[in-house]
Amino acid sequence: MNTLGNRLKLTTFGESHGTAIGGIIDGVPAGILLDFDAIQLELNRRKPGQSKIVTQRKEPDEVKFLSGIFEGKTTGASIGFIIENTTQRSDDYQHIKEVFRPSHADFTYQQKYGHRDYRGGGRSSARETANWVVAGAVAKQIIKDIKINAFTSSVGELFIDKPYQDLDFSLTETNAVRCPDLASAEKMENLIAEIKKQGDTIGGTITCVAQGVPVGLGEPIFNKLQAELAKAMLSINAVKGFEYGAGFCAAKMKGSEHNDRFNADGTTKTNLSGGIQGGISNGMDIYFRVAFKPVATLIQTTEGLDIHGNLVDLKGKGRHDACVVPRAVPIVEALTAFVLADFWLQR
Amino acid sequence: MNTLGNRLKLTTFGESHGTAIGGIIDGVPAGILLDFDAIQLELNRRKPGQSKIVTQRKEPDEVKFLSGIFEGKTTGASIGFIIENTTQRSDDYQHIKEVFRPSHADFTYQQKYGHRDYRGGGRSSARETANWVVAGAVAKQIIKDIKINAFTSSVGELFIDKPYQDLDFSLTETNAVRCPDLASAEKMENLIAEIKKQGDTIGGTITCVAQGVPVGLGEPIFNKLQAELAKAMLSINAVKGFEYGAGFCAAKMKGSEHNDRFNADGTTKTNLSGGIQGGISNGMDIYFRVAFKPVATLIQTTEGLDIHGNLVDLKGKGRHDACVVPRAVPIVEALTAFVLADFWLQR
Amino acid sequence: MNTLGNRLKLTTFGESHGTAIGGIIDGVPAGILLDFDAIQLELNRRKPGQSKIVTQRKEPDEVKFLSGIFEGKTTGASIGFIIENTTQRSDDYQHIKEVFRPSHADFTYQQKYGHRDYRGGGRSSARETANWVVAGAVAKQIIKDIKINAFTSSVGELFIDKPYQDLDFSLTETNAVRCPDLASAEKMENLIAEIKKQGDTIGGTITCVAQGVPVGLGEPIFNKLQAELAKAMLSINAVKGFEYGAGFCAAKMKGSEHNDRFNADGTTKTNLSGGIQGGISNGMDIYFRVAFKPVATLIQTTEGLDIHGNLVDLKGKGRHDACVVPRAVPIVEALTAFVLADFWLQR
Amino acid sequence: MNTLGNRLKLTTFGESHGTAIGGIIDGVPAGILLDFDAIQLELNRRKPGQSKIVTQRKEPDEVKFLSGIFEGKTTGASIGFIIENTTQRSDDYQHIKEVFRPSHADFTYQQKYGHRDYRGGGRSSARETANWVVAGAVAKQIIKDIKINAFTSSVGELFIDKPYQDLDFSLTETNAVRCPDLASAEKMENLIAEIKKQGDTIGGTITCVAQGVPVGLGEPIFNKLQAELAKAMLSINAVKGFEYGAGFCAAKMKGSEHNDRFNADGTTKTNLSGGIQGGISNGMDIYFRVAFKPVATLIQTTEGLDIHGNLVDLKGKGRHDACVVPRAVPIVEALTAFVLADFWLQR
Repeated sequence: MNTLGNRLKLTTFGESHGTAIGGIIDGVPAGILLDFDAIQLELNRRKPGQSKIVTQRKEPDEVKFLSGIFEGKTTGASIGFIIENTTQRSDDYQHIKEVFRPSHADFTYQQKYGHRDYRGGGRSSARETANWVVAGAVAKQIIKDIKINAFTSSVGELFIDKPYQDLDFSLTETNAVRCPDLASAEKMENLIAEIKKQGDTIGGTITCVAQGVPVGLGEPIFNKLQAELAKAMLSINAVKGFEYGAGFCAAKMKGSEHNDRFNADGTTKTNLSGGIQGGISNGMDIYFRVAFKPVATLIQTTEGLDIHGNLVDLKGKGRHDACVVPRAVPIVEALTAFVLADFWLQR
Repeated sequence: MNTLGNRLKLTTFGESHGTAIGGIIDGVPAGILLDFDAIQLELNRRKPGQSKIVTQRKEPDEVKFLSGIFEGKTTGASIGFIIENTTQRSDDYQHIKEVFRPSHADFTYQQKYGHRDYRGGGRSSARETANWVVAGAVAKQIIKDIKINAFTSSVGELFIDKPYQDLDFSLTETNAVRCPDLASAEKMENLIAEIKKQGDTIGGTITCVAQGVPVGLGEPIFNKLQAELAKAMLSINAVKGFEYGAGFCAAKMKGSEHNDRFNADGTTKTNLSGGIQGGISNGMDIYFRVAFKPVATLIQTTEGLDIHGNLVDLKGKGRHDACVVPRAVPIVEALTAFVLADFWLQR
Repeated sequence: MNTLGNRLKLTTFGESHGTAIGGIIDGVPAGILLDFDAIQLELNRRKPGQSKIVTQRKEPDEVKFLSGIFEGKTTGASIGFIIENTTQRSDDYQHIKEVFRPSHADFTYQQKYGHRDYRGGGRSSARETANWVVAGAVAKQIIKDIKINAFTSSVGELFIDKPYQDLDFSLTETNAVRCPDLASAEKMENLIAEIKKQGDTIGGTITCVAQGVPVGLGEPIFNKLQAELAKAMLSINAVKGFEYGAGFCAAKMKGSEHNDRFNADGTTKTNLSGGIQGGISNGMDIYFRVAFKPVATLIQTTEGLDIHGNLVDLKGKGRHDACVVPRAVPIVEALTAFVLADFWLQR
Repeated sequence: MNTLGNRLKLTTFGESHGTAIGGIIDGVPAGILLDFDAIQLELNRRKPGQSKIVTQRKEPDEVKFLSGIFEGKTTGASIGFIIENTTQRSDDYQHIKEVFRPSHADFTYQQKYGHRDYRGGGRSSARETANWVVAGAVAKQIIKDIKINAFTSSVGELFIDKPYQDLDFSLTETNAVRCPDLASAEKMENLIAEIKKQGDTIGGTITCVAQGVPVGLGEPIFNKLQAELAKAMLSINAVKGFEYGAGFCAAKMKGSEHNDRFNADGTTKTNLSGGIQGGISNGMDIYFRVAFKPVATLIQTTEGLDIHGNLVDLKGKGRHDACVVPRAVPIVEALTAFVLADFWLQR
């Protein structure tokens, strides 16, 4: 229930306001010289407080590896790690102890478990995704030849109007919104600042591109490559949709338009398929798009339901993002790396 | 690799032109009096040759249960079943023995396995989905109080322009295209007939609605209800995308628009969330939409790649659908039932 | 629940008196040219009615492969197979419809499931092991360089008094009791005949030796090679114990006696460890011993419990073995091959 | 690979001389008020340095729970825990950096992984079992009505000569050897002291009895209750054998002796079956016996193999047990509790 993957497995634990979060990565081959700076860098990309448009909760978010590594190299044993929680302000959450916030997991957790850690969302907090970023950063080092680049492709109604092939991914990290199209980035940043001023939030999409994927990753029936990617993406807290290749547009097309004709070397002239045929990678770029809903916590008065069945006013408190999409970029990359590494090890 | 589910498991086998396809359903509780006619009816809904707009390959598609049932009732033992293949015309496929068709799994299977059953797509054939329909029909009988209705919501550019709440699901089976909006249905049917005349194919979408789902199905982290639904849907052969609740539209919205306010009884005034919060059902309708690409096999001359690296002309042969969406409606329902029953048994 | 294995998986179904039993083998690599005669031969070794000391129920026990094989070679797809039940004499079992036999699964099945197929033991019948023999015979062809030899090492109080190194495994199949020590074999055969005349049954042990196992099979913590072997063996219907290497004798020894000293090439001078260190094969012979209880069905009057709570006389009927050990020899080999092939594919 | 269990899962990490060991327990129901003292008490039972007959390595072995518990009660979320390693004396192990000790996992780890943490056995150390004891102590609190008692039933050639029914389990913890038969206990203690003086080690057996197990735990085919128990026991580092009920003695018996006749209430007059029929508990006591080899590390000069292929003298160093059996008693109980709780939650 708290495990992702088949041959490469990540099992996690932790609540937003507990002592620590962490996980166990199982199935990492022996002999990989880990680049710990690269791992911490990924965590830093995800961490709160990086820019004025994101939540100001500041966590050092330092990962401590506890096992599975000897003299800097993986040993093939399970890798345990923890990230301590240091700046919880649990008092911020006293007001929701007995109140369910709208469009949060408060109500469903209470109904399912009868008992919940209400502080900061407990287990349902997106803080969990820090664990995924650690695992993804390790996974990236298993599949070094695969390049994975995610970026913010839309915020609200603002979309990048270019195909990904025309973008320079090295620009993604140059702006707070993580959009490699700088003209769009500026507009998006302004929009998020505006929304934040309103105490509101806004959704967006992330596009992810994996390049250099060898032919043959994925399984034909229930563990299709796209199915495992979809499952991983739909595990991210605010995600509402997934499409790969031509995606929902494909549903409007004719076969004569959609089919990708071959080149003599087995590559294809177009790639509407998104790099996967029959559940198995065909060596072309894998690309997909993920839809994020707007964050449910508003810095406005909203209406909650208390445990006695009364509708009550809730004043938004705590430190929250007006748009999670920029911070979700490393999360999408991490899960993509994890899924691909899992299949890579299954070959 | 050929198994779906956690507590309720379906493991399958079979190629399009082999002796039989089939599967094993494991985890069905003892004591369920099975309605075999209902199961066969679901298979009939999926089967080819039902109307002039679908493939004319006629298979009796009769399921034979081999175990796990005694005196009409499930015993708790694994349920084995087979569906014999009776009308294969393997000669239709001699021409692709050494040729990879565009946007098919031929190339990736050959690369991955080095050896493939090329007849009718072998294991990659959508014939496999007949197994899923059997399992889904059994699953429906485990969760009798949940009503699952899928329907064709678009074909090409033709969309139903009503919310699902305004549709009468009892009309879905009254037309060949399985669209409960009869005005749309007629247009869709004409469009498909036109496309077929051109030897071309067309994509579309299916919307699925699950009603009567109890609160509490789904797991909080990696087995979120939406994640397992997405995985199941992306396992269907031509599917390119999945969205639930407000889906990709949510990515354009503000939190103040998207949040679902509570009623005093715990239900919500709106349901943009699509019946799931934090990965767990909240008792509201679960609804989602699935995008299907156009079928890759055209009854036109297309260009394939032979195993020697030559581009060769392929004349479309065989019996194929101009639009798979109508026949995929029972498949979407079946997998939805299976996923829900799996979670239902995990409670 | 009906699945064995991790990377190589066998999922099975079937009752003694149903239409057919069968299974799905998943994870077999592509490109293996299967020797079907070898598979059938293993089934024949297990099948009833082979000699005067075993049950006279005669089943053709022919396996039909339904998928996953093309032009004689495995394709990497799941392999479905069935074995039809042809000579059921269900009337033999009318008398136990409402009666639980002592030391059978009748009572526990009834309590657990509330509803059971009482004919021939239903799912609890050792007929299920025919499925395992098929899977094991396929597994043997995955690990051709590993030689697996099981044999009857004791019947009742009669033991072979030689180490396995002094036995000629080619003699195992020369006698009905499957004991390669011919002097012991004759005594065992006489003992079983005598026991049978009394309408009684008797237990025994099987020793199994796997030679040519490469170094490195097995996982260090919970999937230790010996743990998976033990689990597989304890899945066999009448098995009560498992020991490997020095086994229970090791519990009486001192470390200075038990330790296996190295040779310079990494082999060891003795092999009390049984070819496994830390859960991982070390390249030496793996050997273990499995204890079988006497068959519970006697051709005598015994006392059963009816569903109304009355103790009733049961007259032994049906066709039963006086000693299952000889017929279990191919079953032990099959499961051993399956476990080893599973680990072999995990490397 | 580092995970035990199906519905209740334990995933672990950690090396003997790393920063910490730990694990994640997944699947614990919400709402259990945990008795932390009881958990620590179990750890204390396993911990080194308790008496003069065991290793003098002293670890505080304090478990820290990091998640899944709120206000003292389980929340249904995964429970992360760590146990810090505090008194490693890694210098004790410099001498085996390049030398494989006989009958240890050094050689197989090196061959399998090419790289190993040689300090204190690394991942192969029995220190891992502290994790299991934590998980087992939690499991015991899930199945409070089941009483699990393990005890030392033999050391070397010294056996308790009474059936377990004649023992008073409350005496087990009164002596260092954990044997409830005090006359035997004293002899065993003397024997171990004598063996220790010789710098040697000795094997033994543990018997475990589970009472109050409800009817219906276990699955019929591959997850038989005895099969999962056997797998768990054979995961313990020094274990060489497992038998339940009449065990290896059953192999010498006749059916007319071995069958357990029913009482009118469904219990049985004898219990040679060991409380399990057809893989499913029948409500009678479950009992089994586990064989432990003597510890491989001797405080004598033994011969090791260095990585260059030379046989070299190894002087025994470090802090080691002359007989692990007494300290293994809580480990056997812990794994038994874990397996039973796993099945209990599957019902």
